[in-house]
Formats: sequence, C-alpha cells, structure tokens
Amino acid sequence: MLCQLTLFHKPLKSSQRLTWNKPPKSVLVIKKIQDASLLQPFKELCVFLTEKNMIVYVERKVLADPVIQADESFAAVIQKFCTFREDLNDISNRVDFIICLGGDGTLLYASSLFQKSVPPVMSFHLGSLGFLTPFNFDTYQSQVTQIIEGNAAIILRSRLRVVKESREKNARVDKKGIIMTNGDSEGSRKAMQYQVLNEVVVDRGPFSYLSNVDLFLDGHLITTVQGDGVIVSTPTGSTAYAVAAGASMIHPNVPAIMITPICPHSLSFRPIVVPAGVELKIMLSRDSRNTAWVSFDGRKRQEICHGDNITITTSCFPVPSICFQDPVNDWFESLAQCLHWNVRKKQNYLSSKEDVF
Amino acid sequence: MLCQLTLFHKPLKSSQRLTWNKPPKSVLVIKKIQDASLLQPFKELCVFLTEKNMIVYVERKVLADPVIQADESFAAVIQKFCTFREDLNDISNRVDFIICLGGDGTLLYASSLFQKSVPPVMSFHLGSLGFLTPFNFDTYQSQVTQIIEGNAAIILRSRLRVVKESREKNARVDKKGIIMTNGDSEGSRKAMQYQVLNEVVVDRGPFSYLSNVDLFLDGHLITTVQGDGVIVSTPTGSTAYAVAAGASMIHPNVPAIMITPICPHSLSFRPIVVPAGVELKIMLSRDSRNTAWVSFDGRKRQEICHGDNITITTSCFPVPSICFQDPVNDWFESLAQCLHWNVRKKQNYLSSKEDVF
Amino acid sequence: MLCQLTLFHKPLKSSQRLTWNKPPKSVLVIKKIQDASLLQPFKELCVFLTEKNMIVYVERKVLADPVIQADESFAAVIQKFCTFREDLNDISNRVDFIICLGGDGTLLYASSLFQKSVPPVMSFHLGSLGFLTPFNFDTYQSQVTQIIEGNAAIILRSRLRVVKESREKNARVDKKGIIMTNGDSEGSRKAMQYQVLNEVVVDRGPFSYLSNVDLFLDGHLITTVQGDGVIVSTPTGSTAYAVAAGASMIHPNVPAIMITPICPHSLSFRPIVVPAGVELKIMLSRDSRNTAWVSFDGRKRQEICHGDNITITTSCFPVPSICFQDPVNDWFESLAQCLHWNVRKKQNYLSSKEDVF
Amino acid sequence: MLCQLTLFHKPLKSSQRLTWNKPPKSVLVIKKIQDASLLQPFKELCVFLTEKNMIVYVERKVLADPVIQADESFAAVIQKFCTFREDLNDISNRVDFIICLGGDGTLLYASSLFQKSVPPVMSFHLGSLGFLTPFNFDTYQSQVTQIIEGNAAIILRSRLRVVKESREKNARVDKKGIIMTNGDSEGSRKAMQYQVLNEVVVDRGPFSYLSNVDLFLDGHLITTVQGDGVIVSTPTGSTAYAVAAGASMIHPNVPAIMITPICPHSLSFRPIVVPAGVELKIMLSRDSRNTAWVSFDGRKRQEICHGDNITITTSCFPVPSICFQDPVNDWFESLAQCLHWNVRKKQNYLSSKEDVF
Repeated sequence: MLCQLTLFHKPLKSSQRLTWNKPPKSVLVIKKIQDASLLQPFKELCVFLTEKNMIVYVERKVLADPVIQADESFAAVIQKFCTFREDLNDISNRVDFIICLGGDGTLLYASSLFQKSVPPVMSFHLGSLGFLTPFNFDTYQSQVTQIIEGNAAIILRSRLRVVKESREKNARVDKKGIIMTNGDSEGSRKAMQYQVLNEVVVDRGPFSYLSNVDLFLDGHLITTVQGDGVIVSTPTGSTAYAVAAGASMIHPNVPAIMITPICPHSLSFRPIVVPAGVELKIMLSRDSRNTAWVSFDGRKRQEICHGDNITITTSCFPVPSICFQDPVNDWFESLAQCLHWNVRKKQNYLSSKEDVF
Repeated sequence: MLCQLTLFHKPLKSSQRLTWNKPPKSVLVIKKIQDASLLQPFKELCVFLTEKNMIVYVERKVLADPVIQADESFAAVIQKFCTFREDLNDISNRVDFIICLGGDGTLLYASSLFQKSVPPVMSFHLGSLGFLTPFNFDTYQSQVTQIIEGNAAIILRSRLRVVKESREKNARVDKKGIIMTNGDSEGSRKAMQYQVLNEVVVDRGPFSYLSNVDLFLDGHLITTVQGDGVIVSTPTGSTAYAVAAGASMIHPNVPAIMITPICPHSLSFRPIVVPAGVELKIMLSRDSRNTAWVSFDGRKRQEICHGDNITITTSCFPVPSICFQDPVNDWFESLAQCLHWNVRKKQNYLSSKEDVF
Repeated sequence: MLCQLTLFHKPLKSSQRLTWNKPPKSVLVIKKIQDASLLQPFKELCVFLTEKNMIVYVERKVLADPVIQADESFAAVIQKFCTFREDLNDISNRVDFIICLGGDGTLLYASSLFQKSVPPVMSFHLGSLGFLTPFNFDTYQSQVTQIIEGNAAIILRSRLRVVKESREKNARVDKKGIIMTNGDSEGSRKAMQYQVLNEVVVDRGPFSYLSNVDLFLDGHLITTVQGDGVIVSTPTGSTAYAVAAGASMIHPNVPAIMITPICPHSLSFRPIVVPAGVELKIMLSRDSRNTAWVSFDGRKRQEICHGDNITITTSCFPVPSICFQDPVNDWFESLAQCLHWNVRKKQNYLSSKEDVF
Repeated sequence: MLCQLTLFHKPLKSSQRLTWNKPPKSVLVIKKIQDASLLQPFKELCVFLTEKNMIVYVERKVLADPVIQADESFAAVIQKFCTFREDLNDISNRVDFIICLGGDGTLLYASSLFQKSVPPVMSFHLGSLGFLTPFNFDTYQSQVTQIIEGNAAIILRSRLRVVKESREKNARVDKKGIIMTNGDSEGSRKAMQYQVLNEVVVDRGPFSYLSNVDLFLDGHLITTVQGDGVIVSTPTGSTAYAVAAGASMIHPNVPAIMITPICPHSLSFRPIVVPAGVELKIMLSRDSRNTAWVSFDGRKRQEICHGDNITITTSCFPVPSICFQDPVNDWFESLAQCLHWNVRKKQNYLSSKEDVF
C-alpha cells in the first residue's frame, strides 16, 4: 500500500490580512486622466494624505492638467508631491501602497508600472462598480485610515508572465513555409516580457481571418485555434474579455489559467481551465498564410510573425488587492453589479397549468 | 433561363389588425385561482364588462372561491355570468374574445381550452410583466373599450399540433428490442392530440439518464438525442424553457419550429430552427433500455414507451394575441423585462490604458 | 367573433423543382484561382460542357493562369469560351445557370456577380464538403446532365439587401457629438448597395474596443451593442460566422434574419431571430468615441463614421441553389460534415452505478 | 512596506509518481457486471495476477455470473480469490491497488467503496475511451507489471465530501413557511455523508419545476437557483454532467469546485469556479412550495425537504488515478476522444473572396 498519501492540497485560505512591518509612509495615487469628475476627489484625497504625513507620489502627467495647474488652493499641496514619469523613473521600491481613482483600467495601469513586486492596491470606483475597484469614495477617510493602520483583508491576484520572443529580422520563410535562419542562438532573437493582470489576447488583427495558431502546454501541442483568436487569462481576467467570449467565471483565489477561444470555427471548442503551474506557448502554425496579433491587458498591440513565440506562465509577482469586505463578498458583489450574474425576476416565467387552475 | 423566379416570400406583415364583423357580445374571463391578489381586479373587470352589456363567461371553479361566494356585493353580478366546466362544456363557439388575469400560465390555459379556432386573447399582467401578458391593469377600462371597438393590433402566435400515438397494450418488446404486435392497424393503436403554444418536452422523467431518442424530420432520421431531453417549441416557446436550455430567441412572427437539446452529451449539439411546414417525429431508439417522458406546455406529463411516437406539425389554429403596442415593441419590451436581454452597465468594464492615461 | 381567421401561413414548401422554359444554352463556370488541384476538373468539365453544345462563360482572370495558357490540348476549347471581366462586363442576363468549382467562397463570389436576379447555381466541392457545395465531382457528367434536363430540386437562399449611406464629406461632428450638415438631402449623401448571401458584420476593426453601435428595427431602437461587434445574417449565414459567435442554426427555408452579437459585454445578450420582412438599421451611437467597420460576406471592408447608416432588408433576389438530394437532407448532411453537429461517441460517458453493478 | 509577500502559490506539480514502501501484494479487480464482452479480459487478467502471486479481491456478485460459474477452466483460479460483499465487508485497509475493467462507472463505483483513503486505481477501457479509463487492454501485461514495479505517474483526483443533514421527522412547516422544531439539537437530526468523485446534483426530480434553491458559500447567501437544478462538481466532474450543462472544462489538477446551473431561468447565470477550500451549503428557499432532489455521482437519489441542508467541502481523500502517460496528455487525449474537443475540418468554412479570386 502507498505509504501515506499526502493531503491533496491545503485548502487555500480565501483571504489574507494586510500586515505592515513598520507604518507605511509613501503612497502612489493613480488617477484616470481626462476625466473632470475625478479632480475634486483627487484633490480631497491628496490633501487628506498629506495631512496624514504620507509622502504622495503622483505621475507628472496627472498634474499637467490645466485645471489642476490653475487651482491656487491646490498649489501648496502639489509642492509636497513626489512626481515621476513612467518612462524615466523607477518607483518600484519607493511606494508602500497604491490608491487608484477611476475604473478597472487604473488597476491595470498600476499593474503595468510594477513588473516585479507590487505594493498593495486600494481601488476606488467613482461611478459604477468595477471588478477591480471595490471601494466607494464616500467614506474614503475612514477607509484609508484603516489601511494605514493595517486593518484590511487582501486578495493576491495572480498575473501572467508573458515573454514574446521574435525571430531575427533576416529570417525568411521559404515556399514550403519552413523558416530559414542563419542561427537560432539567443543572441539573434529579441525577447520582450510583460506582466498581465487580465489576459493575453491573440487575434486576427486587421485581417478578415485568423491564421491558424498552435497552442502548446508543457511542450505538447494541445490544439490549433481557428476562429477570431484566443484569450489566455488569469482568474481575474476571466470576468473581463474571456466572459464575453463565453468563459465560466473563476474566483481570483483559484490557482489556474483559463484558455478561451474567440468565435471558434469548431462548435466543440469549449473554454478550458488548466493549473497555474503549467507553461503555455503560442505560435503561428507552420502552414498559416497570415500573421496574427497579440496584446497584453489590451495594450502594446503587436504583430506575431512566423517563428515568433509567446510563452506564458503564472508570474511570481501577483497584485495584492485590498478588499472592501473580503475576497468572497467582494467577488459576488461585483458579479452581481458588473455582470448582473443571475439577477432575474423572482416570478417563474415558465408558467404551467399548476399556476392557474 | 428560368422563366421567372417568383419572389422568395412575401415579407410577413409584422402585425395584423383586429376586425369585428359585428360587435363582440361575449367574453371569457380567465383568472388564476388561489391568488387572493387577483380577486379585486377580477371583480372590477367583471362589473365593468356587465355594465358594457357583455355576456361574461367564467369557469365554475373560479367562482367556487369562498371569498367570492361570501361577497354579497358581487352576488348580483355573478348571477349574470354564464358558467361552465372545462371537462363538461364546450364553449369554443360561444366566446368572442378572452381576457386573462394572471401570468403567462393563464394564456397557456386559455390555449388548452380551444383545440381548434381560438378567439382573440387580451392578457393582463398583475405583478411583473410576462412574455404573453402585455397589458397593465391600471388602465383596463380604456383598453378593454378599445378592444371592443376593434381598435387593436394582433399577433398570431403559432401552435404545434402534437399527436401521440401509443402502441396497443399487448404489444411486447422481445429480447432484441424488436416490437412484436399482433397487428399494427390504426384500430389497435391509441392516438391523443394536443395543441401546444410553448413547447413539447421529451425528457428522462424520474430516470437518471435519458433513453436515446430518435428525431425524424419529414421521414428522415436527422439525429439521436443523448442528454436530459429535447424541446420542440414554437417561436413563442423559444423564450420559455428553450431559452433556459440555450436557444436563441425567435420572434413569434417567424414561421419556424425550434429544436433544442437539454444538456446534450455532445458539445456540438447546438439548437436548430426548421421551417414551420415540416413534420417532426420523435421515438425511442431501438436499443434504448429505459422509457422517456413527454409533456405539453408543461402539462399532461406521460410516459413514452417503445413503439410510441410523437408527431409534431405546425397547427392550423394559432392563438391571436392582442398586442399592447405592436408585435415588435411588445416583444422587445418583454425581452428586456423578462429576460433582461442585453441590459447592462453603460460603462465599459473591459478597461485599458486608453481609458486611463 | 372574428369573421374568419386566415390560416397562419401556408407551410413553406421545403423544396422547389428546377424548370426550364426552353433548354439552357449558356453556363458560367466559376473556379477558385490559385489552386492547382482544380485545373484538371475544370478542364474536364469545360470540355464536357462544350461537347454538350453549351456556351461556356469564364472570367478572363481564370484563363490567365500560366498552366492553362501553356496547355495546348486545352487551347481549342478555350477559344470557344465567352470571356468577361468582372469590372467591365455585365453578364447578368446572358447566363442560364452557374457551376462553381471550389469551396463556399465560390458561391459567395457568384452571388456578388449578380446584384439582381441570379441564375441557378450548381456547386461542387473538391475536397471536404462545404455548406454551399453539395455536389461531389466524381459523377459530374450525369449530374450536370440532370440539371440541363431540368431534373433537380432547388432551394432559394435568401440574401440581404444592404445599403450603406454615408454622410457627405464636409459634415462635421461637433463637441457634443451632434452632426452638423449643410443639408441632409439625398444629394449630399452617398449610398452603396450590396447583396449578401451570408452576413453583414459590424466590428471594431483595428481598434481595441468597439464603439457603441445602435440597432434599430422598423424604426425602433431595440438595443445598443457593446462588444466586438454584431452579425446580421441570413439563415444561410447562420452556419457561417454567426455559429462561431454562438447562434443557433437556421434552415435556409425559414424566412428570417438572425442578429448575433460578437463577444458581447452583457451575459444576457443572446442571439435573436426576427421575421424576414423587417427593416434593420445600424448606426454608431451618438456618444461613441471611435468608429466601427463593416464588411459584406467578408468583403468590401470599410469604415462606418458618425452619421453613416447601414440599412438591411431581405432582398428580392435570392440565390437559387441546386440541391444534391433535397433541402432537408443536404442541410443535415452539411451540419454533420462541416460542423460535426451532434456527432458523438455512442457510449454514455455519464456513467453511474447502474451501469456497473 | 509589506515585509515580504510570500509567493502566490507553489506551482502545483502536474504529476506525482507512484511509490511503494514495500511491494504491493493485493489487488481489487472491479468488473462491470452484465457485460459479456468483459468476461474474457477479466479471466485473463485474474489468471495473470495470480501468476504474479498477487492476492486478488473480487466482489461476490461478479463471480455469481452463471457463465463464470460454468467455466471449469476458471474454477481453480476463483478459489484463490478473496471475495467480499459491498454491504458486509470493509476492505478499505486490505487492498494495495485497484484495477477497473469497464467504463467511467467502474471508477465511480470504486470511489464509492472507499469513503476514506483510496488505493491507487488503474482503469482499463474496453471499447471507447472514457475520461477516467486511460488504459488500453491490449498490452495489459506489461502495463500491470509497470504498476507493480512502481513505475507510473499518478494524478490525485479531488473528491467532494457531502453531508446531507435532515430535519427530524416531526418538524413541521407552518403556513408562513417557517420551520417549527421541538429542538434543533444534533440528536434530533440525521446526517449522511458521501464522497463524490464527479458531482452532487440538486434537481427538480419528478416535478415540472424546481423549487427555489439557495446556495451559500462560507455562510453567505450567494445566489438562488431557479431552473432545472444545480451541479456542484469536482474538476473531474467538470467533463461529465457539468459540461453538458454548459460548463468550461477544468483540469483535475486545479484545486477548485465548479458550480453549474441546469437550464437556469436567468440568461446571465453563467457557471462559476470557486477555490477548493470553501464550504458550500444548499437549502430549499424559505418560500419554495415544492421539494427538490439530490444525487451523488448519479446514485443514492433522495428528496430534500424544508430544513434539510447539503454541505459540500473538498474531501481530504482524493482518488489516486494511475496515468497512462501523464496528467496533461491523458486529459487532452480524453477531451479529444470523449468530447471531440475542437475536432474540426481543417478547411476554413468561412470562405471569402480572398479564397476565390
């Protein structure tokens, strides 16, 4: 008999607590730009944070807004800010936590700023609830105070580490679709890396039809995609583009990767969920005539050519999102608010005689 | 060259008008029983109708309600009613139009009372909107008056004529699944006929698994159903049980029959829509071990045995439903109200950097 | 009582017969170009047709193939052809019937050549079966002879008449999204008309997100599309792109139009089927920031700007497709072959104890 | 700053190796009964195992087959068997590993025999491939030898621990739907426990309509089910009944529980995936008029009454299934073979002009 079967898995804790080694001192405030309705909350929040003696980081272009520039009452506060530019300054080790004001896009943007470890993020929705923005601004003072005091639940949202490796420029595809290279060494290839919080999308771009795209898992060819494209998403991303393409919704605490075809030609091409530990690889099929396109959380859209490959693994650097209540309630609240999940009339519309006589 | 291709089809008029040869004199009022909230509207309506000199037909069991019996103020009105019993009296030629008070079930019940031609039906929802009950009771007086004056749009809701033919009792199935009869003449078989407004459902009944069920179209075996069952529905029924099983929604003016599998084992068993003119037949497969069950608009549930067959065609007797506005607006209104069709947050939840910076 | 309810609809005949007023004399042969495997069948067929004294029409670019040019044995046959160029010559009244060699694309192309009445089309698949190509080339001689003798069933495949009306160039959208024109007369607008056999697609084109698109039916706004786009298809088109986007499959004899969203943001945005007689209109929503793109049977891709509108009705000019067997068998055969519809293992994979002990 | 974010999760190993502390000595052979085609393989296997000096356990009813009884050549082998009866004998600590001959049902049955720790299971399909039966019998000798020698990959298939707690018989529901008990102590309630490998199903049983059923997660009411029922499944079960009801497929190595509605009334009731660590509870809604029914891996079907509750957690006792190749290849092989996942014609059926001219 087997000596001892170890327990299948330790039940994943549905929540973790935020704990500070020492009190937090610096906060990055991310604000959606070109949205006038956010200016007042932004100013209020910043004033409140400086009064709390927090060092406030703000991206320079946020302050470039003429309305902010013209606001004399705000000038004194601005002077205390640490400003930075995304392309020039690395703030990854200087920020204790992040506050987002806007929609889900602000958290995606915050994620993109931190390619390695990410500070905890507190996200306010101003307007309708988003999947990633559980906090209501009405009571921001008490809520921010709770965070500073270390009194909050956290959910670690997994990210995908995506590497796009491109063949060298002088590689050629001959008549039979075979790639001719002068050498396949690392030196002659270019690799770009991305951390995505929602999904990697491979689609047909401006073409009418998608090239055939091969999908590998741990080195095995598992299927070829024919259709409009394929989405590889985190559980967080399962409620974004993937759900529109027909995926089931996965709670962010499930360690998994979702693979969802976009308008597949095959009726039986249902989405699948694979363990977080696998390595996925996407390439154009040998015999495909067109190229395809790839984007990362909806950004950095670029072409995939013959010989390029996209390698996807679960990242070591999740995004710690601060919960409004806890990971369970927050998720079901956003399912109801954002997707109207199972919201319906109470009355049974499938009536029958039993209901009548 | 082809002499002249006749036009593909005359565009179906999306609506017809109600027209009376002579003023309507009699009305059948159908009320959901055992629902106290309907008593007051029912009484008001009946008083109103008698004041309009209409002959009011009411089913006897509706009046058997103790609360009605005890209502002295209503006693005089009741005496003017023509009462009948579903099982004893044929009122099919005595009623000029029908008013339903309740949910969709009241219209299904009204449909079942008229196995041939059906008078126009006006359906009030009391509570939330149903697919078949477009009228709001608040303004019933003016609305009923409009109908009596012949001022209304009508939609003809197709029904299915379903014949269940059963083998004689002494037929036997031998070991190889072959049916042994002493004679297969009409005389030794029993045929029952039903007019259904929503759907015929064949399902596994109390068994854990459905027998294999064969589906024929115009005499050809088109597929075998493995799963929880199969729904054959009218366009009206496409928004009832069929939509829960994954069907697309079909406007009642489309002359079609919908075939929808219930939880099919095959991923590729998508629902199909066939022309109203075909004949469908359903039978147990030769090699199926269990029986199956059939119901008609959710009623008359009964077993299907080896050798039985269910024949389905579009009925010659549709249900003329009186529209609140017109067939287009009424339908989209009920899609929104009953199914929340494409009701959503205006805000894009698929945010991207473009939304942020 | 209603005078007499006219029958709901005459059951649509599931098939019509091909009938010639006088023997057919001319045939248009359409061949997919750049496919070497089609050359030999093409030559055989053409020789056979000329031997039958048919006048053979071939598009000039088909004959431009160097292999054909170099084939001396074929030179004499070619000389008898009537050649034409799509952009220069109108052959719409000169052809008695059409033969297509290739895939479904050849029938779509044939459809595009005839913006009004279309001659009957016989389509051969060379390779795997297509939805629109029921004939096998192996027995082409007897089959073509049958057609010439008028011995065949025909299915009339409805087309959509699509008009794209564009605002004049000097119209401007002001800051509030209101369109400013100097005059909205017919003269200042440009209208293009298309006959589509499969579908009109409105999608996001090269953008990451679709503009909000408004959908009108008979003048009423019925919904606003948020997602990757929307497909308006014929029943023929229901088994093409629409099925990939989740639509039910509709038999070509059903007089209907299918509306299918592509990756809609709303979970409840199920496809709908409306009667063939309606008029649909598609426009950018007032408040949408981007434009959208439209294509017609996958071709003529172009931008939709603010103020443009796409009007869709069922065309008066269907495509008469010659059946291999009949409209029912041909359709279910192609469902099985092209979509593997309900093809599955016979064995029940949902096993239970009953199956075991 | 957060002291140190611990890694999100250790990537789950996609496979474990079978390791024996000491050589295995006893094997339980499970054979589907009433299937004559299995007799010969069963006999061959048993002879082989006894020649290997393994102690062979066989259930008594398997040997009761008259054909086996009549087989003189097999009589000597049978005498060496250890026989047992499911209802009388506990063999849970006497078996080193299990061999199943039949379909997926044999593994479900094996699972049911072991309510706690389960020995490794090797499953042969005889006929078409099942999800749970990766081994082909053709080479059983070498394959069984490999297992005995400890040379095999194992996948731990999670099970659900389900407790059904019923109210005491003398509890009553009063007119307002409130449950009246004389005491709610443990003593007055009955609890039954089940280990399920595929799924728990709550459905409408013999009723036409499902009672409203409330679903709780970690004590929170997350939704109310209206429809034909709800499936709570393991990843293993995601490819069984759940996939027929529309679920995405989940690899068995993902520590998750899937919740899938059966024909829900709400269009937006998409399946969801929650972490393996949660506790689910199912109860009739207060106001539901009917009861509902529950079954466990398709067996032990029973009624759920007011006041009963079904509690579901991930079991501590998974089923160690021996892989044919490894957990990745085995799973994708069965997706293709059992569900025809993304099996399709290579040719693009969405043709366009580009394909033609």
